[in-house]
Amino acid sequence: MSGSTAPAPRVITLTTDFGCGDPEIGSLYGVTWSIAPAVRIVDLSHDVPRHDSRRAAMLLDRHAAYFPPGTIHVVVVDPGVGTARRPMAARFGDQWYVGPDNGAATLLLRRARKLGRPVEMVAPDKWQFMLPEISDIFHGRDIFAPTAAHLARGVPLSEIGAPITDPVLLDFPEPQPTGRGWLGQVDEVDHFGNLGTNIHKDQLGGSSAWDVLVNGEIIRGLVLTFGEGKPGQLVALVDSSDYLSVNVVNGSAEQRLNARTGDTVEVRRQ
Amino acid sequence: MSGSTAPAPRVITLTTDFGCGDPEIGSLYGVTWSIAPAVRIVDLSHDVPRHDSRRAAMLLDRHAAYFPPGTIHVVVVDPGVGTARRPMAARFGDQWYVGPDNGAATLLLRRARKLGRPVEMVAPDKWQFMLPEISDIFHGRDIFAPTAAHLARGVPLSEIGAPITDPVLLDFPEPQPTGRGWLGQVDEVDHFGNLGTNIHKDQLGGSSAWDVLVNGEIIRGLVLTFGEGKPGQLVALVDSSDYLSVNVVNGSAEQRLNARTGDTVEVRRQ
Amino acid sequence: MSGSTAPAPRVITLTTDFGCGDPEIGSLYGVTWSIAPAVRIVDLSHDVPRHDSRRAAMLLDRHAAYFPPGTIHVVVVDPGVGTARRPMAARFGDQWYVGPDNGAATLLLRRARKLGRPVEMVAPDKWQFMLPEISDIFHGRDIFAPTAAHLARGVPLSEIGAPITDPVLLDFPEPQPTGRGWLGQVDEVDHFGNLGTNIHKDQLGGSSAWDVLVNGEIIRGLVLTFGEGKPGQLVALVDSSDYLSVNVVNGSAEQRLNARTGDTVEVRRQ
Repeated sequence: MSGSTAPAPRVITLTTDFGCGDPEIGSLYGVTWSIAPAVRIVDLSHDVPRHDSRRAAMLLDRHAAYFPPGTIHVVVVDPGVGTARRPMAARFGDQWYVGPDNGAATLLLRRARKLGRPVEMVAPDKWQFMLPEISDIFHGRDIFAPTAAHLARGVPLSEIGAPITDPVLLDFPEPQPTGRGWLGQVDEVDHFGNLGTNIHKDQLGGSSAWDVLVNGEIIRGLVLTFGEGKPGQLVALVDSSDYLSVNVVNGSAEQRLNARTGDTVEVRRQ
Repeated sequence: MSGSTAPAPRVITLTTDFGCGDPEIGSLYGVTWSIAPAVRIVDLSHDVPRHDSRRAAMLLDRHAAYFPPGTIHVVVVDPGVGTARRPMAARFGDQWYVGPDNGAATLLLRRARKLGRPVEMVAPDKWQFMLPEISDIFHGRDIFAPTAAHLARGVPLSEIGAPITDPVLLDFPEPQPTGRGWLGQVDEVDHFGNLGTNIHKDQLGGSSAWDVLVNGEIIRGLVLTFGEGKPGQLVALVDSSDYLSVNVVNGSAEQRLNARTGDTVEVRRQ
Repeated sequence: MSGSTAPAPRVITLTTDFGCGDPEIGSLYGVTWSIAPAVRIVDLSHDVPRHDSRRAAMLLDRHAAYFPPGTIHVVVVDPGVGTARRPMAARFGDQWYVGPDNGAATLLLRRARKLGRPVEMVAPDKWQFMLPEISDIFHGRDIFAPTAAHLARGVPLSEIGAPITDPVLLDFPEPQPTGRGWLGQVDEVDHFGNLGTNIHKDQLGGSSAWDVLVNGEIIRGLVLTFGEGKPGQLVALVDSSDYLSVNVVNGSAEQRLNARTGDTVEVRRQ
């Protein structure tokens, strides 16, 4: 184990909109292990809302950094399966992506560019790296899983397909400075009704002395944990993904604030 | 990884009716890894309807081909646990089965026989390949998982138990030729209300020029993907398991057609 | 595989109250594999009721014995995250624990003490065995997973932190002898309405000639399996965890008996 000098086999994560427990997830494992037997595979999420490549992009953004260098994130959230949309295999710094070229990689790309890390994107087009039969409705199994498995075995991106220079990008606005703080937005509403924003903890400078304005309410100061609030209280905190989050303790900020994705969130220094 | 010459450890899949998230699933992993530490394990499905060995048979039929040779499919869908029904360990070509002898292996057996591949079935009866204590209500953990793990370590089937010559078989009728096409049936209704049939794409000869008759409706021609239909439209296509499927785009064919398993489906050349 | 002489890499189990399918579960895998690439990881349960460390303790008690020696059980069921509650890393005989010091390890500790096996408990306090940044609300990812991964690589407990001599213990009363049998209690009500008790099969001496008294009803004799009862019948049996369980065949004992955790259950020799 720890005494081994061989490089550890690579990790592949799976993100789909199949729904937790769908047996097609098993076939993604089967196809991958048929090609790259030593690869470790983990489910990141199978509960992405159907066809919501935007949510897939956010999931990758918020979790990829916790995976080992060389991890390949396979995404099967694919409204365009069976149409002319391109598949994509890519490297963004030390994290890799295989899935549709539909914007799900937008934030991995943006982060790698910000940090000046190498980026390489190709459109898989070689039959030898896909299953012998390609169904029109399950590219995850027939194209993405085998492509990821071949990458895991060491096939270089340049052999997988032709370069992509114009990837599909989704619009993720960044917070704008206001002089007194930042003007951002709600990026995500989770199933508890918590509001995830696009304001990063680095923009808050490690201070909790901020007022948060959202949908007509003012939250005075940030808390460190839910435990500091009382049940029913509206609070703001930096969540485990390092973004500012607006919550009702044991309740739903979505309902309390009648909030939705895209709503404006402002932070002002106290 | 790719440089290794040792054979990759075997894959074991798990199919149960425990429900996704049941902690007993974890104990199947624990028992297996206690005996065969290097084995890779994957959940195929834990949402088989309770005691529905017919559905388990279909799941194996539609997914086994995507797993590496030597994969052992463990099935714990077992209305007869605690009764006299036999356990079964078997090889069907390059896919293996461990579970109750209750028909869940019917389609693996049929496929192997059709392709002329070797078939070997035994009834595990040796204490040394089971857990020291056998509960009356959890043979999955106490018999099937340890048996699969010993097989994965290389114990031959002939040492596991006595041959089975009269396996329990479920009735899966095959489509009948009509001169103008095929007369088949609905084999499966999934939770979206899609109707899976027993008509295989090979019987459709690669053509989409077929009319599909089911419960008084006629669908004229097959589509390649859902994307070709309009929301609410009744369509027929070859699904990702290679069988003809009848669907309502963004809706339920089960409801539209008042359909259930066993209903007749006819295809006629246009 | 079976020819290898290297010790198998260790197993880590995950038990949380995140809910099945939460993407944070994936980040626990990522963090663990970043530190200990060869470790095998399995989900034990993610459906522990929120903050219910008592239920976590019972889950570990009923499943740990099925895992290989050296398995590390990581528990992220943590009402006290962000407060002063201590983290704990511990060895209880051949099973290990990493999680909050909130009583979730109570039964692992009790069992190891009963069997006279070695017990060692420490409070992790070394930055080098945690993630570089510790969020206030996700110690599972930032403290527990990395601690478990370092233990799996062979770091001794004594290097992880200072000894704990006063672990938090939950109250799990043991059945009391009555002369005619035992006086126990309902320890758990599962989602089918089955009542798990604290009366162990060893206390029943392998006999089924027991009357079971619970909430005003008498069940005469134990059955071996559900299959022996008729639908709707109230039955008692030794469940797959080796504890006496009270059930309604195809129904809910919870509803029939208006039962809840803590209710008295008496068994009397017939």
